[in-house]
Amino acid sequence: MKLEEIVKQIQPIRNEWVEKAREHTSRLALPPRALGRLHDIAEIICGMLGTLEPDVSSKAFLVMAGDHGVVSDGVSAFPQEVTGEMVKNFLRGGAGINVLARQVGAEVSVVDMGIIPDVVPADSERRHRFHACKVDRGTRNIAQGPAMTRAQAEQSILHGFRLASELFSSGVRLLGTGDMGIGNTTPSAALGAVLTGTPVDRMVGRGTGIDEKGLKKKMETVRRAIEINRPNPEDGLDVLAKVGGFEIGGIAGCVLAGAFHRRPVVIDGFISTAGALVARALCPASLDYVFAGHCSHEAGHRRMLEHLGLEPILDLRMRLGEGTGAALAMGVIEGAVRVFREVLTFEDAGVSKG
Amino acid sequence: MKLEEIVKQIQPIRNEWVEKAREHTSRLALPPRALGRLHDIAEIICGMLGTLEPDVSSKAFLVMAGDHGVVSDGVSAFPQEVTGEMVKNFLRGGAGINVLARQVGAEVSVVDMGIIPDVVPADSERRHRFHACKVDRGTRNIAQGPAMTRAQAEQSILHGFRLASELFSSGVRLLGTGDMGIGNTTPSAALGAVLTGTPVDRMVGRGTGIDEKGLKKKMETVRRAIEINRPNPEDGLDVLAKVGGFEIGGIAGCVLAGAFHRRPVVIDGFISTAGALVARALCPASLDYVFAGHCSHEAGHRRMLEHLGLEPILDLRMRLGEGTGAALAMGVIEGAVRVFREVLTFEDAGVSKG
Repeated sequence: MKLEEIVKQIQPIRNEWVEKAREHTSRLALPPRALGRLHDIAEIICGMLGTLEPDVSSKAFLVMAGDHGVVSDGVSAFPQEVTGEMVKNFLRGGAGINVLARQVGAEVSVVDMGIIPDVVPADSERRHRFHACKVDRGTRNIAQGPAMTRAQAEQSILHGFRLASELFSSGVRLLGTGDMGIGNTTPSAALGAVLTGTPVDRMVGRGTGIDEKGLKKKMETVRRAIEINRPNPEDGLDVLAKVGGFEIGGIAGCVLAGAFHRRPVVIDGFISTAGALVARALCPASLDYVFAGHCSHEAGHRRMLEHLGLEPILDLRMRLGEGTGAALAMGVIEGAVRVFREVLTFEDAGVSKG
Repeated sequence: MKLEEIVKQIQPIRNEWVEKAREHTSRLALPPRALGRLHDIAEIICGMLGTLEPDVSSKAFLVMAGDHGVVSDGVSAFPQEVTGEMVKNFLRGGAGINVLARQVGAEVSVVDMGIIPDVVPADSERRHRFHACKVDRGTRNIAQGPAMTRAQAEQSILHGFRLASELFSSGVRLLGTGDMGIGNTTPSAALGAVLTGTPVDRMVGRGTGIDEKGLKKKMETVRRAIEINRPNPEDGLDVLAKVGGFEIGGIAGCVLAGAFHRRPVVIDGFISTAGALVARALCPASLDYVFAGHCSHEAGHRRMLEHLGLEPILDLRMRLGEGTGAALAMGVIEGAVRVFREVLTFEDAGVSKG
């Protein structure tokens, strides 16, 4: 399916189901809306799914990996090899996202969206699904020109859309997005600055932990990337192609797939939210199906979330990526759905009303 | 055991184990402290338990119920019968705490600390343990005199201490506190005002949902309770006896038991935190073993937490009580411990350092 066909078919959530769900909540044996955001979350899911029997029991993660040419500018505290090394770690099950996804019962699939090395996991080392969707061996340096071609940008989104669609078709009811890519807070900050209209110095943070001097340099790099490429904020594909990354495009595709299939998607932190910004630029209604798992400690993330009108579920000073914040938030989302379905009504519980 | 013997034996957490745990965290294959509060939580638990192999897999809740004489002043939006009705609902498994505790695998025990009716659950209706520790049939009206005698205050704490101790002895590694008691935000606000030195109007909130007029009246009631009883803020037992409640004393006992047995206790919202304030007044070191599950939407809760130096794990505008916020937070605490134990080190994962 082509990107424009996908976008054309996306519909907002069904408010009539949200209303019906609110009516159900009002009958639960507790003071009016006493579980706060848990009620809101469950009711919005009813609006997505068009049901009063929401179900998020089957969960999955797509962890999208990509490399970034801009690393040659010295924007990261870690060497570029780490991207491929961490992909192997994901496949073995030893990283943060593996641990937290296990806890909430979510399957992890790892995607090579465009890392430099070829990872061919031996069966004995692989505990998780692996998808080779390498758009290219890393992006080009955004401080010198576009990250990728427009065709590659579309391709990265379509890969994400296809993989997420396959998961939804196989029964997944709640999808989390994750990322890995040394240097990827730099394109994400550039995307954030362009798509939210925020000054670069408010959007750039320390990523994996650069020092004050590195931070200044990173801001300069982002400024140059925007100046040289002049991405058009009205054109999501243009912004992704010029200052984005392959894994960010893949995440944008996941967001579009959630909306297309009317299933909730939990985005993680700074990089995933950059992907959501791209999805919104392509199709504003796609954001109806998105939960913000957490607010990252990375500078600029709160600004991105405000722009998207998303209130993060958690705020625990996390800034790892991989999907870790989304995984923890899935516990809250599942709690919200269970409360909606399992708490007895005043009538059934034999409890007097106020 | 007597209360003063308990207090005498409580020791602060062991900072040498927190330090060892921080050293372990620094070797995990992620940027320095990139999982923020998850690292802090796991390391503090190591300090409580004196181990680098923390374990919170076995979890339980004590849901403490009590009635309040002050309800005759019209401080609540719900009738007093609801306390007993909800106790029955807890035993059947149909309330919010049942649902959220099931999700995190925590056992729920329900305690009659001093409700007016006698609840004798038929076996067929009982899915949860029930403890009859009725100190009295509800407290007396704090707006007219002391809630209970000093002996009853001590008795309520010792009941909570004993029940929590039994759970820890049977292998529970993480205890959550919950409450039920129509009217109990009123004594909790009085306790909060006295023990934190905060003006009454900043400590009193809408509880289950009273209107503006009711709120004014409730503030007046709390002011009168403090004026008439003149509780001594230096004497936790005096404050509990004069303006407290039986379930609040029970929760204070749980907090002391956590510290005594060196096990983490997750407190819930406004009422549980009032219990923690009493525990702190009796034994400041007991707070070393406490996690604040969430920040309640009830006015004054944040002020209580600040006074205790506790940063809430969640902030989801919840204000139900029962232990619901603590149950959701247990998911985050378990995630923290799993990350600490299961994420591979740089060395084991074969990942390059920054």
